[in-house]
Amino acid sequence: MAQNIYDKQEFFEGYSQLPRSVHGLAGAPEWPSIQAQLPALKGLRVLDLGCGFGWFCRFAAGEGATSVLGLDLSQNMIARARAETSDPAVRYEIADLEHVELPQASFDLVYSSLAFHYLEDFGRMVRQVYDSLVPGGSFVFTIEHPIYMAPTQPGFRTDEAGRRTWPIDGYSVEGKRTTDWLAKGVVKYHRTLGTTLNTLIDAGFVFDRLVEWHPSPELLAEIPALAEEMDRPMMMIISTHRPE
Amino acid sequence: MAQNIYDKQEFFEGYSQLPRSVHGLAGAPEWPSIQAQLPALKGLRVLDLGCGFGWFCRFAAGEGATSVLGLDLSQNMIARARAETSDPAVRYEIADLEHVELPQASFDLVYSSLAFHYLEDFGRMVRQVYDSLVPGGSFVFTIEHPIYMAPTQPGFRTDEAGRRTWPIDGYSVEGKRTTDWLAKGVVKYHRTLGTTLNTLIDAGFVFDRLVEWHPSPELLAEIPALAEEMDRPMMMIISTHRPE
Repeated sequence: MAQNIYDKQEFFEGYSQLPRSVHGLAGAPEWPSIQAQLPALKGLRVLDLGCGFGWFCRFAAGEGATSVLGLDLSQNMIARARAETSDPAVRYEIADLEHVELPQASFDLVYSSLAFHYLEDFGRMVRQVYDSLVPGGSFVFTIEHPIYMAPTQPGFRTDEAGRRTWPIDGYSVEGKRTTDWLAKGVVKYHRTLGTTLNTLIDAGFVFDRLVEWHPSPELLAEIPALAEEMDRPMMMIISTHRPE
Repeated sequence: MAQNIYDKQEFFEGYSQLPRSVHGLAGAPEWPSIQAQLPALKGLRVLDLGCGFGWFCRFAAGEGATSVLGLDLSQNMIARARAETSDPAVRYEIADLEHVELPQASFDLVYSSLAFHYLEDFGRMVRQVYDSLVPGGSFVFTIEHPIYMAPTQPGFRTDEAGRRTWPIDGYSVEGKRTTDWLAKGVVKYHRTLGTTLNTLIDAGFVFDRLVEWHPSPELLAEIPALAEEMDRPMMMIISTHRPE
């Protein structure tokens, strides 16, 4: 089974206090950029991989999605997602994305937010998603950016001239990265951007868009702390589709 | 006109002594990875944008390409390319890629090696290439990697713990970068990977492959100095095609 950090009390408590956990989609600064990549949701059958507290599932149902299935490894998260959802179009299940068997040709949109960097076997996941989509279906996901993931010791530094930098090493050395984020020893899997995109192509997907998320000038004026995000991208949005 | 560094004596002399200038394609460690992305060249009409000394043009003709056109801004390079080429299938012309007007639907393969990071208007170039290809034609190019391009002060550092890093800043701040490489004040244009790929998609191209070049274990054993290339990619190979 994949590492289940979200059911560690320390991590879960920290995660529950993040703006995106308290305020939902509106608390995630990348949300407008994700929305721009989504198809119109009305009438779609939607799958959310790593649904967390269910914010996106409820949003999709609210936009008129016919059915929404949210999967997550965390019992804590699924419990809270169920408690906060009344829309009968939304269903949640506990599932380990490393081993999940998705139903074939069953979804018009597969969505995932910041979950795939926890997966060791991204290729298996991508092939599962491809088969679970109907022809023409969309696959839109966010994932930590490899520039953010790569370093053996991630973190900003300030050099002798006062320049803030994000020192990279091991970009082309793929595999496990252990970091301390909300809890000690959080395991993630670094893959280069090339590997991520080529894995999608090899599975049969057509590439549509790569958004290396950074704040707009307006958002930067509103939240100056986001200036760091101009120096190195923390996450990216990838939009693809299964051809007709 | 674009900056013509190759006709500055200092730059040209330095460039002429690089392994890739002395030994041609065999002197470029990324060449086998580029070759893996190329279609079979026999019978193709080929365009090389930024052909330099003509190594690739002669290779393509040697592989049976029907016609090969090499374009370069540098009079020095075109003069030497012409002097070293006897194959009548190969033709060279001086051209500024920022403003060139390519013939429409005339090529089966457009190739370019490490030239596009000198262009301010990548979108114009890409649209020119698209129109110059026949439907089904291939567009394969290498370009400096944005991780390599982004920093305001590019260069490896060694931190207090002895870790070699490549400090990044300004990744999402696109535009001019002035570096000292072979000559002072070489102007290049940084674009994010997202911008590069999305520009191709917007022009109509289908994305096929992204290779963020790094040495194989065998090459690393042979040339240990290439270990740096595992820490941050210097260049990438992008393979796309114009749909049928």
